[in-house]
Formats: sequence, structure tokens, C-alpha cells
Amino acid sequence: MKDVHNPAELISEGLSLKCNPLKYLHLGKNKSIGLVFFNSSLRTRLSTQKAALNLGLNVMLINIGADGWSIEFEDGAVMNNTSVEHIKDAAAMLGIYCDILAIRCFPGLQNRELDYEEKILQQFIKYSKVPVISMESATLHPLQSLADMITIAEFKKNKSPKIVLTWAPHIKPLPQAVANSFSEWTLHCGYNLTITHPEGYELNKQFTEGANIEYNQQKALENADFVYVKNWSSFQDYGKILPVNENWLLNNESLKNTNNAKIMHCLPVRRNVELTDELLDSETSLIHHQAENRIYATQIVLKKIIESISNEG
Amino acid sequence: MKDVHNPAELISEGLSLKCNPLKYLHLGKNKSIGLVFFNSSLRTRLSTQKAALNLGLNVMLINIGADGWSIEFEDGAVMNNTSVEHIKDAAAMLGIYCDILAIRCFPGLQNRELDYEEKILQQFIKYSKVPVISMESATLHPLQSLADMITIAEFKKNKSPKIVLTWAPHIKPLPQAVANSFSEWTLHCGYNLTITHPEGYELNKQFTEGANIEYNQQKALENADFVYVKNWSSFQDYGKILPVNENWLLNNESLKNTNNAKIMHCLPVRRNVELTDELLDSETSLIHHQAENRIYATQIVLKKIIESISNEG
Amino acid sequence: MKDVHNPAELISEGLSLKCNPLKYLHLGKNKSIGLVFFNSSLRTRLSTQKAALNLGLNVMLINIGADGWSIEFEDGAVMNNTSVEHIKDAAAMLGIYCDILAIRCFPGLQNRELDYEEKILQQFIKYSKVPVISMESATLHPLQSLADMITIAEFKKNKSPKIVLTWAPHIKPLPQAVANSFSEWTLHCGYNLTITHPEGYELNKQFTEGANIEYNQQKALENADFVYVKNWSSFQDYGKILPVNENWLLNNESLKNTNNAKIMHCLPVRRNVELTDELLDSETSLIHHQAENRIYATQIVLKKIIESISNEG
Repeated sequence: MKDVHNPAELISEGLSLKCNPLKYLHLGKNKSIGLVFFNSSLRTRLSTQKAALNLGLNVMLINIGADGWSIEFEDGAVMNNTSVEHIKDAAAMLGIYCDILAIRCFPGLQNRELDYEEKILQQFIKYSKVPVISMESATLHPLQSLADMITIAEFKKNKSPKIVLTWAPHIKPLPQAVANSFSEWTLHCGYNLTITHPEGYELNKQFTEGANIEYNQQKALENADFVYVKNWSSFQDYGKILPVNENWLLNNESLKNTNNAKIMHCLPVRRNVELTDELLDSETSLIHHQAENRIYATQIVLKKIIESISNEG
Repeated sequence: MKDVHNPAELISEGLSLKCNPLKYLHLGKNKSIGLVFFNSSLRTRLSTQKAALNLGLNVMLINIGADGWSIEFEDGAVMNNTSVEHIKDAAAMLGIYCDILAIRCFPGLQNRELDYEEKILQQFIKYSKVPVISMESATLHPLQSLADMITIAEFKKNKSPKIVLTWAPHIKPLPQAVANSFSEWTLHCGYNLTITHPEGYELNKQFTEGANIEYNQQKALENADFVYVKNWSSFQDYGKILPVNENWLLNNESLKNTNNAKIMHCLPVRRNVELTDELLDSETSLIHHQAENRIYATQIVLKKIIESISNEG
Repeated sequence: MKDVHNPAELISEGLSLKCNPLKYLHLGKNKSIGLVFFNSSLRTRLSTQKAALNLGLNVMLINIGADGWSIEFEDGAVMNNTSVEHIKDAAAMLGIYCDILAIRCFPGLQNRELDYEEKILQQFIKYSKVPVISMESATLHPLQSLADMITIAEFKKNKSPKIVLTWAPHIKPLPQAVANSFSEWTLHCGYNLTITHPEGYELNKQFTEGANIEYNQQKALENADFVYVKNWSSFQDYGKILPVNENWLLNNESLKNTNNAKIMHCLPVRRNVELTDELLDSETSLIHHQAENRIYATQIVLKKIIESISNEG
């Protein structure tokens, strides 16, 4: 999130909320947040709902995808086809009924330019006239990364931990959003970041400027304090799964040269495909802490938004 | 709505609510409204939810259609087929769990007698034993029309504006509900109403008694103060799209002989099929005001219902 | 429910709640219950929502089945197939976001051992670390039965009524859950229970120990005070609909030798397939009372759970 000038402060405020989640229970009273899902969601939906409840916000769920409400995004379109409503009207309406909007919209993974334009999110921002937050858009997942940063802040043993983001195998082509955001936030926090992946899986440089890229997973993992495991599809050969010869499945053995590294994953995880049960179920795994911190990451952002709305009003 | 004896008063009360939406926040406390959807809905669902929240009501969403809960409406049916529950039992149950019910049920557009009987809505009224409101039924959409009347009251420049309801093209056969209700309410409010449409698109006379019918759109629009644009399928050749030779798409040019007419549409709108972007995006368009007034139209009706329940109890 | 040591007390507390449903409105404040549906539900969903609202709980609805979030239940599975998340992670996450979980998971009716293991419910209990209640699992439907016991307590005219559970015809293979639970609870309450069904429809003995089994419906119904009508598929020839020669459809005539028996059914009911309209619509029918008591059965159980959580905390 480019809007965040002082990530350390935001993280520390998030951790304060965790100690006292209901401190601002009256802040959102009589305000509503609309959660708009173009794609399905469990963790994000529930953690956002929980964060909103902790602030006393009313929650309205809008399953655009599931309800088959096909939206037109082209300016000037003659709407004589399947789209039933233009984003101009849909976003304006949502902005009338809700004080804040949260949008989840995955990329199509067919057209890189289109996805990286973030057309859906941008048009919601343009036409709704209310604050819009991302619950994972085509290229970024900022609230996940803020939760990850809060988790690292809780578990780091030294000021400058070595953080490794490792690509992991998967059976389906996944977005680059989590990897992009995690890289961006880690670097923005001033951490030492190494990204390791097979050749061809290089991420968009705009998010990884300043990270070490290391194609050898074993070398990358040396002395790591935190290992973030995540699959993504190719950015270069956009949206494709490339053939990979080495075994990238992470297991206990892979961690032997780390600094007792903690394991992180945003979930949902394909167990024994991305990494092994032995790692996920061990003390070293932070996955449930990350899931819990999703609440406070979202809550601190919503708190700031409510405060800014209230100041305007 | 035949129940409304004094529409002017209701409209004025709706406008008062708009100035102070939370004035009756405690009125609905510990009461629940069940929103029952046989058909999908975005605007109606959200505006009803918002109206309910403004009155402190709990909202329960019931997606009958989407959940595939097939309901039997025939009295005495031997239920050895696809229907899993009789309306007698479904409506009674909903009336047990909810203090108020709101129903959305579109017409099948196959059988005019069946649709105009309003069987679904009527059986909910009969068996639920609680107040039932329509969120658009087979033949009427009263809360939309009340919102439209509130909007006209806000924007009219003289006491007796000329109001024109013009048929617009569409690619799918749509119900007559919005047009029926708008005609009925406009006339009930004592306004001067002209309805214009191609031959064969005459509405059911029971709703248009007192309106001028003019087949020439240009002539109809002369000196109009408000132009309500809406498609509907044929009532005579029931549910059909009839061949139309003239161009009924409304654009800037169409309005040249009006009295700087304001444009209205209930949304969702097929842009550049029903009317042009230039009209929809101009200052003359009231579409977002109408959407906003959906909240207060519903809220004033719910307020009166809660008051009537509380007086009984 | 084996956890219930004193059903009479629970029933009596449920009846007290019915007189004063909002007495404990502040008990659940700032706590959340997650309602997890692997299968669709109307009555159970709404009555649980209502019970939760009466206790001031926040409700989060999670439609696992409808959202196509396929969950893996095998320990150690290599998840390279359709399942997107392991129950270990899904249940843990739900336990993080919710203080109480309620699960609805029907049996597959293909594999008796699998269904009677109650794998889904058991793994939620194991991995979520919060209290879990059943909204009908593979083999039991305890909250329905508690509602039924409350209804019997309200309508019984003598201390030891004769209760008959009669199998009824249906066009689809249904679970044994309602029949199992009703038998278990009736016997646990110390009532005299007769179960009647065609040969081959014997229920699992673990739930019916102490009941009279009578294959002749007419004989079974003699002097009955309550007749519970319900279909189930075969337990022996698991999940099958067996050919039945006699007419098991219950009608007025069937009740002539009862003690003015009251009719019960958990709903939804296939009218004129399981029993006739004349019975369902008569004064003798308790079906809407049962539906109403679903609220208080759930509410008393939730009340006890909230109290036990609060004592821990």
C-alpha cells in the first residue's frame, strides 16, 4: 500500500488493538461497510467481518460473482449483451448504501496489462465516492501483508531478521498478488528480503526492487529467520505454470541450515504439495497466528478510515 | 399500494426521515425482518437492509431461489415431485421467526392470469400471519415508486409537473411491474401523466386509468418536466418482445422540446440501449437520487409497520 | 446428546426462555457464532439465527457447500486434487474468528461406517478449539429433538404419554438422524416409546434400546398420545429405499384408535405423501409449535455454552 508512510507505526497500532480489540467498539456505530466479492472467500470474509464487528460497523455482504450480476466495465459500451449493469451505476449505488467498500477481485490471468491495470478496483474507487479497500485485487493483497508484518513483529528475535519468500509448487495457476504485496511490504519495512523461485517465475520488478533474487532454494534459505511459502504463476509467461525439474516442496530437511526459521503461509494451503504436514503442524509454523492477525490488520485500517470519514463529516 | 390513502403525507414523512435517518433507531430493536428472495437483487436488497438498520431491525436474508428450495403453491398437492415444502408451511415458519417479511418474486411472464393473481405474494400474506411487504412482485414494485415520488417531490419546480413514462428498448422480456406501479402512484399523487410506447405495449388499464396514452414519443415528450424511462414486455401479447420499427432509444435530441426535463430510471439500466450515456451522466439525470431514496421509501413504510405491530402487542 | 444429564431441567429452562426470550440479551454481547453449512437449510438456519439474536450474539454465516469450498478430511493427504483446504486449517481458522461454531453436515448415505463415525463433526470439534454444536449431522439432530421434547412437555396431558414414532413414505432416501435423535431423547426423558416401520427399516439399536418395535402401524398407534411422523432410509441396507407393500401414508382414519393423538413432524414435510393435509392442517397438528420451539431449544443450549465460555475466560 503506497498510502502507508509509516508501516512500523501501523503495525504497532495493530498489535495494540490485538490486546484490546473492543476499545473502539463505538467508532463505527451506525456506519456500514459493504464487502463486495467477485470471487469466493472464507478467511478474508470472516476476518473482515470480525474486524468490522469489533468496530461496531454494520456489515453488508455482496456476492457479485455468485449472484451472477455481470458488470460492464467498458466506458461507452452499448449494453446489449450479458452485462446487466455498468460499474458506473453499480459502484455509485454501493457508495450510496455503504460508508466504506471492500472489494475482492482476482485477476483473469489471461492478459497481464489488463490485470495489472487493476481496472475493477480502480473503477470502484472512481465511481463509488467512498473509501475503498482491497480484500485482494488482481495484483496485490495488502491486508494479508499487513497481517504478515504484524506476525513478524511479534515473532522476530532480532531487529533485522532475514526473510525468505520461497515459491512453492501448486496444481493450479495462482495470482502473484500475495507474493507482490509481501515483497513490497517487507522491503518497505526495511527488512532483508531474499526471494527464491525457479527461473521464469520472476515477479514484477516494481514490487521486488531491493530484494535478493536467488534461484537456488537451499542457498536462499541459509540463516533465514522467516520463510514465507507461496505459489504463484509466471509473470513473464503470464499466468502459466512452467515446467520445474527440481523439487520445491518444502520439508523439515529444507530448513536445516536456517536460523530455526519460522514458517509462514497465507492459507489456504495445499498440504504436502506446497510444504509438508510436519512443517505445518510443528511449533515453527505461524500460519494460525497470521490468520488471527488478519483481524487486527483489517481493523486498524478500518479504524483509520472511519476516523478520516468522521473528520470530514 | 392501495393501502396508502394519503401519498403526499407519506412522501413528506419519507423526506423528513432523509434529514434524520437515525431518528427512529430504537423503534425496531429486537425485532427481525426476513428478506425473502425468489429472484436476485442488489439495489433492493441493500436499500432494504439499510432502511432496516436505520430502524434498528435485525435482518435475516433468505435466498429461496438461489438455495434451490423449491416451494409448492398448489393447495392439496401430492408432493411427490421436486417441491420440498408447501407455502403453507414455509410462510408459517418465516412468520414464526420474523416479525416482518419482505418478498421479491418476479413473474414467469408465461401466463398472464397466473402472474396477475400474485399467487406467491398473496399466499405469503395468507399463511405467514405477519406484515408482508413487496420488494417487487409479479405486477407491482411499490417501494420503487414511492422512492420515485419522493424524488419528484424533491425536484419538481411547479405543483403540477408534466410527467412522461416512456417505453425503452431492451434485449430481454421484462416485467410490467415498475411501469404499472409508477403509473398508479403518479396518478394517485394527482400528477399529469402521459405514457408513450409503441403500439402493442399498452399496460393493464387498471393501473393507467386517467393517463394520456400517446404513441408518438416526440409528441409525448413536449413540455415534459420528468421523463421516466423504462422497458416492459407486452401485456397484450403477454411477456413478448414485439417488433418495433421506430428508434425509441432516448438521447439528448429527444429532450429538445421538453421543459428541461429531468431523467429518471429505476436501475439497473442498459446504457446506450434504453437511453444514452450522455443523458445518464448529465446533470439532468436523477437516477442516483432515486437509488438513494429507496432507503427512505422503505424506511418510512417499515416505520409505520413497526408502529402498527407495537400497538397491537 | 450424551452431554445432557438432566433433560427435564433443560426442557424446563427452554420453556422459561420462551416466556422471556430477551432475558439474556446481553449474555452474548461481542461474541460471535459461526453457522457452517455443508448442506442447505432454512428452518435450522433461521431458528439458530433467531436464538443467537435473542442472546445478543453476532452471527456469521458460512455456506461451505454452496461456496464450493471443498475440504480435505484425510490426515496426511497429498492435496493435489480438488480439495482446497484441509479441515485442520479450516476448523482452526473458524475457531479463531468465532467463539462458537454450529455445523450442519448431512451423511452421504453411501457408506454406513463413514457416516456413523461423524468424521466432519468430530474433526471440527478436534481442530476448532471452541464449542461446537450440531445443526444436524450425519446421524443425529439433537436440537430438533430438544425442540420436540419441549413441545411434548407443553402438550402432554399425563405424566407418561405413549409416544409413537412412525415411519412415513418419501420419494428420496433421507438420513436416519431425526429418527435416531428423537428415539434417544424420548427414551432419555423416560417416556414410553413405540417405533413402527416396515421390516428392513430398523434403526441403529444404540439409539432405540428400550423402545417397543412394532411392524404393524395400526397396532402401534393404539392409545398413542403423540405420533411423530418421519421418513428415513434403511439402516441395514444402508441408505436404500426398500419396497413397501402396505400403505404407510398417515391420515385421519389411521388415528381412530389413538388417544386423540397429537401429530408431530420436524418439517419440511411432503404433504399427502408422508401424511395428509387433513392431519397437518387440523388442530391436532403441532408442527408449527415444533418449529417455534426450535428457537428456544437452540437458545437454551447456546446460553449454557456462553456461560461456560465466560466462566473459563
